[in-house]
Amino acid sequence: MKIITVSREFGSGGREIGKRLADELGFTYYDKEIISKIVKENRFDDILDKDVENDIPLSFGRTFATLSFFRNSAVNMIVSEQKIIRAIAKRGENFVIVGRSADAILKRYKPCNIFVYADMQSKIKRCKKRLEKHETLTERDIERKIKQVDSARRKHRDLISTDKWGDRKNYHLCINTTGLDIKGVVPSVAEYAKNYFQQKKL
Amino acid sequence: MKIITVSREFGSGGREIGKRLADELGFTYYDKEIISKIVKENRFDDILDKDVENDIPLSFGRTFATLSFFRNSAVNMIVSEQKIIRAIAKRGENFVIVGRSADAILKRYKPCNIFVYADMQSKIKRCKKRLEKHETLTERDIERKIKQVDSARRKHRDLISTDKWGDRKNYHLCINTTGLDIKGVVPSVAEYAKNYFQQKKL
Repeated sequence: MKIITVSREFGSGGREIGKRLADELGFTYYDKEIISKIVKENRFDDILDKDVENDIPLSFGRTFATLSFFRNSAVNMIVSEQKIIRAIAKRGENFVIVGRSADAILKRYKPCNIFVYADMQSKIKRCKKRLEKHETLTERDIERKIKQVDSARRKHRDLISTDKWGDRKNYHLCINTTGLDIKGVVPSVAEYAKNYFQQKKL
Repeated sequence: MKIITVSREFGSGGREIGKRLADELGFTYYDKEIISKIVKENRFDDILDKDVENDIPLSFGRTFATLSFFRNSAVNMIVSEQKIIRAIAKRGENFVIVGRSADAILKRYKPCNIFVYADMQSKIKRCKKRLEKHETLTERDIERKIKQVDSARRKHRDLISTDKWGDRKNYHLCINTTGLDIKGVVPSVAEYAKNYFQQKKL
């Protein structure tokens, strides 16, 4: 089974890379929205019915702060997500998954882990293009939003693993999309992943 | 003019990636040995005859420590190297250059900057393969050597630029070679570089 995980800075085009990679390689595509939908619709009832505490990842409970945080519903959501992600992997199909610290959750399957990033100006520009017509965010607002989202991603990751979000050691390939059109970048990433799976005999 | 710079952790296979990239793309290849040879042979006499102090990079002189360090011959060597690297770029040919903080020195030419790394076990394994028959280094010796060389690279970089060695922000592509055969990785890097040059109109 071949798995590609894509982690990314907000606004770096990581999700587009993930989607295009899935298309190019003929893999199934998953991201936050798709997984949240599965969780909300209780589509994996048999898996989610089990006692949530049985599946608490190792990094929980290390400090008093995380212990108290553990009791709130956001954490239950994270644990449900983890179960869904593991259940997806158990199906055995090849897939690309964007976000959700899937690289840490799926470690045992030796996924090809990609990190996508860019400089702030480039991320702001990309976000501006995606704004709906009625949205009137200034560049400063967008920058604040980018920092908030990435900070949340960093924290999400800290709850699941001691390997830090964005630290290149945890990824096989880190791609800087500053000033680049995503479409042109994808073939080289697909090529990298193909060689990775071949060499790792996956 | 198309330039690829390769920075790398010692033992990660970065030099091999650089050489193979140059072969694959038909670029000229430069590394520490080749540049040292040019410096030692005074092949660029007209360039090196100028007063060395005229070309001191910005980061010199920031602290008293670097000021005193500046007076020694290692720094003269670094400054000579910088001049050689700039002189090479002025020739206008496409090239790959490994090490020497060339990404910082050649910034104005918008090089495609690559960083190659791997986990310690993988680097030790790669180094062991390269040992001469008479060399009897233990794994611990090799690990110490790896750390020493990388620390020297970090310091070399600090003298030339405030952008830190190994920080992914300073590179376009960071490649983790842990457990991978270098040969198989090169086509994807070449593909990435080709797209980079095309999109940047270089």
